[in-house]
Amino acid sequence: MKIVVVGASGTLGQAVTAHLSARHDVIRVGNTRGDHQVDIRDEASVKALFATVGKVDAIVATTGRVHFGPLAEMTSADFLGGLQDKLLGQVRLALIGQHYLNDGGSITLTTGILSDEFLRSGVNATTVNTALEGFVRAAAVELPRGLRINAVSPNVLTESMDTYGDYFAGFVPVPAARAALAYQRSVEGPITGQVLRIW
Amino acid sequence: MKIVVVGASGTLGQAVTAHLSARHDVIRVGNTRGDHQVDIRDEASVKALFATVGKVDAIVATTGRVHFGPLAEMTSADFLGGLQDKLLGQVRLALIGQHYLNDGGSITLTTGILSDEFLRSGVNATTVNTALEGFVRAAAVELPRGLRINAVSPNVLTESMDTYGDYFAGFVPVPAARAALAYQRSVEGPITGQVLRIW
Repeated sequence: MKIVVVGASGTLGQAVTAHLSARHDVIRVGNTRGDHQVDIRDEASVKALFATVGKVDAIVATTGRVHFGPLAEMTSADFLGGLQDKLLGQVRLALIGQHYLNDGGSITLTTGILSDEFLRSGVNATTVNTALEGFVRAAAVELPRGLRINAVSPNVLTESMDTYGDYFAGFVPVPAARAALAYQRSVEGPITGQVLRIW
Repeated sequence: MKIVVVGASGTLGQAVTAHLSARHDVIRVGNTRGDHQVDIRDEASVKALFATVGKVDAIVATTGRVHFGPLAEMTSADFLGGLQDKLLGQVRLALIGQHYLNDGGSITLTTGILSDEFLRSGVNATTVNTALEGFVRAAAVELPRGLRINAVSPNVLTESMDTYGDYFAGFVPVPAARAALAYQRSVEGPITGQVLRIW
């Protein structure tokens, strides 16, 4: 399969790319690195990416930022930042990318455990992750031509504990290589409208 | 209690206002009607509303538009429209309103059955509703001073079947007056972080 991975240079994206590359032709896309560059917040940038890459069998997104901060200090502008980056960025990849998928192709988005578990300062992360999971479930019933869409929801990554460990006190981290397996299930399997929880 | 209802002139808002008014001092807020007017998409407008209304015991939002349209034709701009109106509009009421709530006060937002049931053309509605439900669950764990936050998720309203009935084929509509009871449970009861499904 020809697979485009957006966010290929990140901690998770590197593991997903390494795993999928063993069996597939993987196109690595990053913000500043990779085979191609894209800004998922920019409509023209995403359109240009797909126009360059052309038809693919799978689109994988392992990218997107959210706002972390105390609810009591959060502004609408803070909140909109996460909506426009991780949420609308991944949705944009799906909305534009659907037209570049071969029949039976798939889209795999990335949410995270904060959809179901809550942290102080994590309100925007929870909102964005639950929104993406709703998008995946609803989009699955509308996609034509056997197209599929799923989300992978990893726990905090072992490799990210130095950075995020204080937020995720008491959580059981998972290695990025283990989370990467779920992307293979979404890309190669028959499932659609599913959230694969790697917790 | 002093309760501000934003969306008081809508089908649901009228029923909620009628029900809560029997026991409480209700301030009716609409886009163009009511005791006060607000544009929930506009930060300055929401700030001005609360500056005028002052401290309250409960904030109820029965307002917000989403984008309806086929996934295959949906653009990021269409999608962002729903995010900025129903999602960010209600979140904005909560983020600003939290600072105007008396101790033990509550925020009650409105989602809808499309968080869990899917329609053709309903991808944006599902995303926005699930996002609001995530927001409510995560915000509940961070709110101080006994403040509470819940969402009410009504099925399609009986009063709206003439308008939306074709979309909601086979759904069991609920009268707005029945959905209004759930707002009373959220405002007067002890619950927080809950989604009250009126299906």
